[in-house]
Amino acid sequence: MTSDEIRVAAAKFRDDLFQDTLPFWLDRSIDREYGGYFTAFDRDGTQLQTDKSVWFQGRFAWLLATLAETAEPRDYWLDRAKHGIDFLRRHCIDRDGRYFFLVTQDGQPLRKRRYVFSECFAAMAYAAYGRVAQSEKHCQLAVDLFQGIRQHLGPDSILEPKLQPEVRPMKSLANPMILIGVAQEVRKATGLVECSETIDQCIDEIQSHFVKNDLGCVLENVGLAGEVINTFDGRLINPGHSIELAWFLMEEARQRDLPQVASLGKQILDWSLELGWDDEFGGLYYFRDCHGLPCAEYWHDMKFWWPHAEAIIATIHAWRLTGEDYYWNWHEKIRDWSYQHFADPKFGEWYGYLHRDGTLSSTIKGNQWKGPFHLPRMQYYCWQLLEEVIHAQPV
Amino acid sequence: MTSDEIRVAAAKFRDDLFQDTLPFWLDRSIDREYGGYFTAFDRDGTQLQTDKSVWFQGRFAWLLATLAETAEPRDYWLDRAKHGIDFLRRHCIDRDGRYFFLVTQDGQPLRKRRYVFSECFAAMAYAAYGRVAQSEKHCQLAVDLFQGIRQHLGPDSILEPKLQPEVRPMKSLANPMILIGVAQEVRKATGLVECSETIDQCIDEIQSHFVKNDLGCVLENVGLAGEVINTFDGRLINPGHSIELAWFLMEEARQRDLPQVASLGKQILDWSLELGWDDEFGGLYYFRDCHGLPCAEYWHDMKFWWPHAEAIIATIHAWRLTGEDYYWNWHEKIRDWSYQHFADPKFGEWYGYLHRDGTLSSTIKGNQWKGPFHLPRMQYYCWQLLEEVIHAQPV
Repeated sequence: MTSDEIRVAAAKFRDDLFQDTLPFWLDRSIDREYGGYFTAFDRDGTQLQTDKSVWFQGRFAWLLATLAETAEPRDYWLDRAKHGIDFLRRHCIDRDGRYFFLVTQDGQPLRKRRYVFSECFAAMAYAAYGRVAQSEKHCQLAVDLFQGIRQHLGPDSILEPKLQPEVRPMKSLANPMILIGVAQEVRKATGLVECSETIDQCIDEIQSHFVKNDLGCVLENVGLAGEVINTFDGRLINPGHSIELAWFLMEEARQRDLPQVASLGKQILDWSLELGWDDEFGGLYYFRDCHGLPCAEYWHDMKFWWPHAEAIIATIHAWRLTGEDYYWNWHEKIRDWSYQHFADPKFGEWYGYLHRDGTLSSTIKGNQWKGPFHLPRMQYYCWQLLEEVIHAQPV
Repeated sequence: MTSDEIRVAAAKFRDDLFQDTLPFWLDRSIDREYGGYFTAFDRDGTQLQTDKSVWFQGRFAWLLATLAETAEPRDYWLDRAKHGIDFLRRHCIDRDGRYFFLVTQDGQPLRKRRYVFSECFAAMAYAAYGRVAQSEKHCQLAVDLFQGIRQHLGPDSILEPKLQPEVRPMKSLANPMILIGVAQEVRKATGLVECSETIDQCIDEIQSHFVKNDLGCVLENVGLAGEVINTFDGRLINPGHSIELAWFLMEEARQRDLPQVASLGKQILDWSLELGWDDEFGGLYYFRDCHGLPCAEYWHDMKFWWPHAEAIIATIHAWRLTGEDYYWNWHEKIRDWSYQHFADPKFGEWYGYLHRDGTLSSTIKGNQWKGPFHLPRMQYYCWQLLEEVIHAQPV
């Protein structure tokens, strides 16, 4: 890669972020009447429902606060981040301290789930806002919530599991993964020492229980001691999720200079690209089975936007780490396929759901699961990572 | 239609049932070690997991008991029906009397859900078995369970709803529909007078709350007084489900000579074929939106086996009712498309999941949702309905 090529790539991510993705959401998603953010929009911005996803109150607030660190004017971004944070605190917390999953436009609770992802995204938003706005109060909110989440996800968890734990105890990769994400944000905001300890425990658990060298993959669900359970759920691989894990690990390795963690992340990326890439039509499958058997979920072979966003980040990370063209080539291959198939040049942003062959399944731009998070996060991280490479090179 | 054509069609349904569909499941799905039925199989019969779906213990037992009425030797079918019924009674009932949703091969509970569909399919199995085996005990089990289900689904329901009922009270079409199905079976077995009363109440509720003449559709979810709720869930149409409702109504109308109910069923079928049929690729969409907006579910445009099976039954019902070629033509169109796309001539049975364009998404023949029910039920009903037409014609 020449420096010019890197500069062009960095500028493209930045411009796509500020001129294509964010304009789709700003100011359409901001509810001036009741606070918080909408996410359900069709291709052209037609609003599809006004219920508010609690995940996205945290996710979009996190994104906006994070952007405020580099984008001007800082207050513009911080104000909009605060908009979601205030709605979260006012309307999204149940009497027991747990967060809801879905609320009405005016903040009445519609649904609460057994998982703590709502809490995790809220904690990330509080941490990013506290850090960038230098708000002690929000940093403390993040720390308190992080401690609560650690208890919920830890051995004394009060979460009621979906499967009867006495009959078939299982645990999910999503838990240690999201905990790494929250701990990284809280550490950045507060320097809390438990953050790195928690991250080390999570990495250790992932490596010893979810990473399967003999199968060449990361499993989504395992027994409590990492046993492979021979069911649909137990054999499940989510290549996009594994790829997201890969770059979480490479990012942690980069921040703390941990070569073994870097190499674990690279290994997971290698496996996941091998398992996940569709050689016939291109793009990444949604689910795979570790024994090559069919998956039970009917959307298993669809191409979703978010695994592609994760893979675009992860391949830059691996290229940065190793300097190998191999990863830059993968990066270009996935980025080009994604822009060709997901991007909507007319109205901006990306579509979310393609059939296996890459044709459009839905014109939707946002729902409870898709909103201003994976795509702009990817554009932001890739822009920042490439900027770092540019500045690290000899002048 | 000439009588010869009808005879050929009837024989084809019968032969497909006994020579293609049932051989796939018998004896592969019968667990001789622990009792009950397996359903998770790949195309060629490779077993994909041994956990047992409680729905399918009831559904397959219902099918086998129902077949015992016409197929010889009767004991062969009744024994196999009893196999699932015994497993249901021994392993699938929780201490509170509610049924589980998923159990291990040896009958340990894995998952329980808030819905009462497990109970409904069990009641249908008990009723069919009680009737055909002339077992007073099983008839009584069916009646008891039916009474319990009526209480669960009625105004004093103890079911915890997914959405907070005080904020947005909603109800689902699936409840009155399944209650019609259970009541029809219990009535056939016992003559219980509350059955027809319950069915009349359900039809009344469906007609006044779920059927929307102004929108030309049946909604899946409405407010408690039938209000249209302007969200993804509130706008949702499931054409296959509406078509199943259409033939439930035409069947009830046939049994009790209710011309208004027949005409409601026909109206619902007309709407659903119009809304559900994919003019570009053929086949029935899985979900539609009553305002033509995109659906939130990513599998919205996939072609599933079961709506097609329902449509093959419903169009014969409507043809039988009206004598109009229009419905026979629809019947042939859907039947031919289905056999071309879902059937697997090599290993028997049907695939379950196609992409919108009719290409195969998964080779799976069974999982927790697909098993020996919709396809063989369709083949059985169509065979029986056409036999009736043949015998009703002047010699």
